[in-house]
Amino acid sequence: MTWLDLAEDSPFGLDNLPYGVFSRGGEPARRVGVAVGEHVLDLPAAAEEAAAPFAGLLGSGVLNPLLAAGPATWREVRAQVREWLTEPRYADQIGAHLVPLAEITNHLPFEVADYVDFYSSEQHAINAGRILGGEDARLPRNWKSVPIGYHGRAGTVVVSGTPVVRPSGQRWWDRAAGPSFGPSERLDVEAEVGFVVGTGSAMGTPVPVGDFAEHVFGVCLVNDWSARDLQIWESQPLGPFLGKSFATSVSPWIVPLDALEHARVPQPPQDPEPFAYLRGAEPWGLDLALEVRLNGHLVASPPFATQYWTAAQQLAHLTVNGASLRTGDLYASGTVTGPERHQRGSLLELSWGGREPFELAGGETRTFLEDGDEVVISASAPGSGGRRIGFGDVRGRVVPH
Amino acid sequence: MTWLDLAEDSPFGLDNLPYGVFSRGGEPARRVGVAVGEHVLDLPAAAEEAAAPFAGLLGSGVLNPLLAAGPATWREVRAQVREWLTEPRYADQIGAHLVPLAEITNHLPFEVADYVDFYSSEQHAINAGRILGGEDARLPRNWKSVPIGYHGRAGTVVVSGTPVVRPSGQRWWDRAAGPSFGPSERLDVEAEVGFVVGTGSAMGTPVPVGDFAEHVFGVCLVNDWSARDLQIWESQPLGPFLGKSFATSVSPWIVPLDALEHARVPQPPQDPEPFAYLRGAEPWGLDLALEVRLNGHLVASPPFATQYWTAAQQLAHLTVNGASLRTGDLYASGTVTGPERHQRGSLLELSWGGREPFELAGGETRTFLEDGDEVVISASAPGSGGRRIGFGDVRGRVVPH
Repeated sequence: MTWLDLAEDSPFGLDNLPYGVFSRGGEPARRVGVAVGEHVLDLPAAAEEAAAPFAGLLGSGVLNPLLAAGPATWREVRAQVREWLTEPRYADQIGAHLVPLAEITNHLPFEVADYVDFYSSEQHAINAGRILGGEDARLPRNWKSVPIGYHGRAGTVVVSGTPVVRPSGQRWWDRAAGPSFGPSERLDVEAEVGFVVGTGSAMGTPVPVGDFAEHVFGVCLVNDWSARDLQIWESQPLGPFLGKSFATSVSPWIVPLDALEHARVPQPPQDPEPFAYLRGAEPWGLDLALEVRLNGHLVASPPFATQYWTAAQQLAHLTVNGASLRTGDLYASGTVTGPERHQRGSLLELSWGGREPFELAGGETRTFLEDGDEVVISASAPGSGGRRIGFGDVRGRVVPH
Repeated sequence: MTWLDLAEDSPFGLDNLPYGVFSRGGEPARRVGVAVGEHVLDLPAAAEEAAAPFAGLLGSGVLNPLLAAGPATWREVRAQVREWLTEPRYADQIGAHLVPLAEITNHLPFEVADYVDFYSSEQHAINAGRILGGEDARLPRNWKSVPIGYHGRAGTVVVSGTPVVRPSGQRWWDRAAGPSFGPSERLDVEAEVGFVVGTGSAMGTPVPVGDFAEHVFGVCLVNDWSARDLQIWESQPLGPFLGKSFATSVSPWIVPLDALEHARVPQPPQDPEPFAYLRGAEPWGLDLALEVRLNGHLVASPPFATQYWTAAQQLAHLTVNGASLRTGDLYASGTVTGPERHQRGSLLELSWGGREPFELAGGETRTFLEDGDEVVISASAPGSGGRRIGFGDVRGRVVPH
C-alpha cells in the first residue's frame, strides 16, 4: 500500500528500505538515501522539508551519525520513512525527493572504524583445511569452541563497483619451490555477509550475546578478495595480511536488522555446547540466499542459514575480552559455503585449490580470477507475505597490475 | 641556546620537540602541544598569536590535520617552533603559552586509522617459537623473506596511563586439557616501537621502500598487551585476535622522524637478500634503547637497533599489494628483544613461558602480570652533541576484571 509505483516483487520494497550514500549525476555532494523500488529517497532533503527531529543526523554524507544514534532513533526514522512512502498526503512532498537509481553513484555508506572477518562456515573451514592441508585434514581443534576471527584493513574497504587492482606480493603455491615476487596468480573472492555496528560500547565491558540488536544496525554483502598465493605464504604464524588487505568490497545498501525479521531462523545445532557467553535465547540464524556470478554466469548459491556461528555470537565473542565497539565497526561472516558443491562461496573451493577447473559457459573455465573478470555477489531473504528482501549487489572487476 | 630554562640532559631538548595532545587541569578542551623540557608549548595558541601559516592545522585537538599536511609542513612547523624557543625576542610571547607538564593530562595524540603489528625481532621470533613450540623449533620458513605482520584493533589503542582491565576469554595453556573460560591467567606485555603515518597513499599504488620519510611522521612507544592463554588457543589458523584486541597503549608524545637523525644505524645483515621491493639504499635501523619496568623494577633493556626488519621495509611490505595508507595509520615493530637474557621485551620470554619465574626485588617474583602491576616502557636515542632524545613513557596498570 503505497502511492509509489512499486513492483510487487521489487527487492527494495517497503519492508526493506535499506540505507546508503549517493551522489547525483556530476554533483560532488554525498547524500544519505533510502532505496525504494527503482528510486532512492534523498533522506536529508525529505527530513529537512518535513522538519523531522532526526534531520540533524543526516547531513554529513555518511551514515555514521545515524548509526551512532541507536535503536530507538533507527526505528523512528524507519517508521517515518515508511509513513512518508505510504500515506498519499505525502506523495507530492516526498515524491519530489525521489531520485531514480539509474541516475546516482553509490559511495561507501559509512566510515569503517574497525573491520573484522570471521570464519563461520563449518563447510568452508573443512574445505579450506582439506584443500590446503590434505584430504585427511580435520577442523582445527578450537573451531567449535571459538568463533575464529581476525582484524582486516578498514582503510581498503570500498563500495561495490570499485575496480580491484590485482595485488602483487610474495607468491608461494608449489610447496617444493621457494616464493617468487609478482602479481598474484591465485586471485579469489569470498562471498560473505557483513554486519554494521551502530551503537558503540565501553572498553572493558563485554556485550552480551542478547544485546546484538542493540548494537548492530544492519547487514550488507561483502566480497573479501583474497590472493591465495600471498595468503598461504605469509599466514604463519600471525594470520592473513597482504593476501586480504588490498581490497574488501561492500554492497552499497545496508539492510536494517528490522527488515530481516522474517529471515530469522534457528542456527544449526552446536555440539559441543559453547561457553555461556556464546549461548543466546533468541535465534539469530539468517536465511539469506546468496548468489555469486562470474562474468554473468551463476557459479555458486551459498546459503547463509547453515553458518555454524551467528553474528550475535560473533559480537559477544569480539567483545568478551573487553574490546570496545565503535560506530562504523564492520564485521563479516567469512566465506559462506554450504554442504553442496554449488554452494561454495570461493573459487578456492569451486576449483578445489585450482586442481579442478569449473565451467562458466560456452566451454570457458576458471580456477582463479583472470584480469577483466567481474564478480557480482547478490542475496535475498524472506520478507512478509511471500515477498523477498533484496540486498544491493556487491560487484567488482579485476584490473591488471 | 635557548631563552628557556632547559636542563642540558632533558629528554625533551630542542633536538627532540615531540608532539602530543593535552588538556589543562579540569578543562575539557584538547590542544596540540610540543614537549620541551618540563613544559608543553600550547601550539595552536602560539601559532594563532604569531599568525603562523600552519595555525589552521592545529585547532582540532588531534594531530591528524598536521600529519596529513606532509613533510614540507612538518619541517616548517618544526623549524618555527625551534625558532620560537631559541630566539630571545620570542621569550615573552611564547613563554606565555608554555604549560608545566605537571599540570596537564595527555590524550591519545592522533585518531588511529588502521593499526598493524609486525614481528621484526629475530630473537623474539626464535624465543616465541621455542617457548611455544618446543626447544627444537626453528624460525618459520617465511620469516626471513616476509616482514610478518597482522592487523590489530585500532579502536582499543589508548594513551599511556589508561588502566588495562584484565581480559576474559577462552583460556588454554595446559595442552593436555581443554579450554576454560575466565580472566586471563597469562597476561603479558610486549615492548614495541610504533610508527605513525602522516601522508596517505593511493589504493593500488605501492609505497617504495625509499619513500618511508615521505609518509611516516614520527615514532612512539607501544605496549602491545597480550593475553597469552587466549592468544595460543585462538590463533590457528587466522592469527591473534582477542589475545591482543583488548588494549594497546601508546606513549603520549610522537617523536618526529627528523629528531632521530643521529639514531639512524645500518640494520643487521639480511641473509638471504630480500626481494627487490624490500631493498633500500638508506639505512633505517634506529638505535633506540628501550627499558621495561614492572612496579618500578627494571626488568628488561631491549635494543631496537638489532631488529631484523626496518620500519621502512615494513611500510614497503604493507603497501606492496596496493593497500593504501591513511593519515593516522599506526604500525608497530612487534616485541623488541635482543640476544641477551635481560633484553627480552615480553614476560613470556623473561619467564620462559612461565616456567622460570624472574625476580623483581626483595624476593618478589613474576611469571605473568598480577592485578595492580604497573608496567612502564621508556626509551631514548642518540641526539646531537652526546645528548639523548627521550620518548615519553608508555605506562599502564592492570586492574582486575
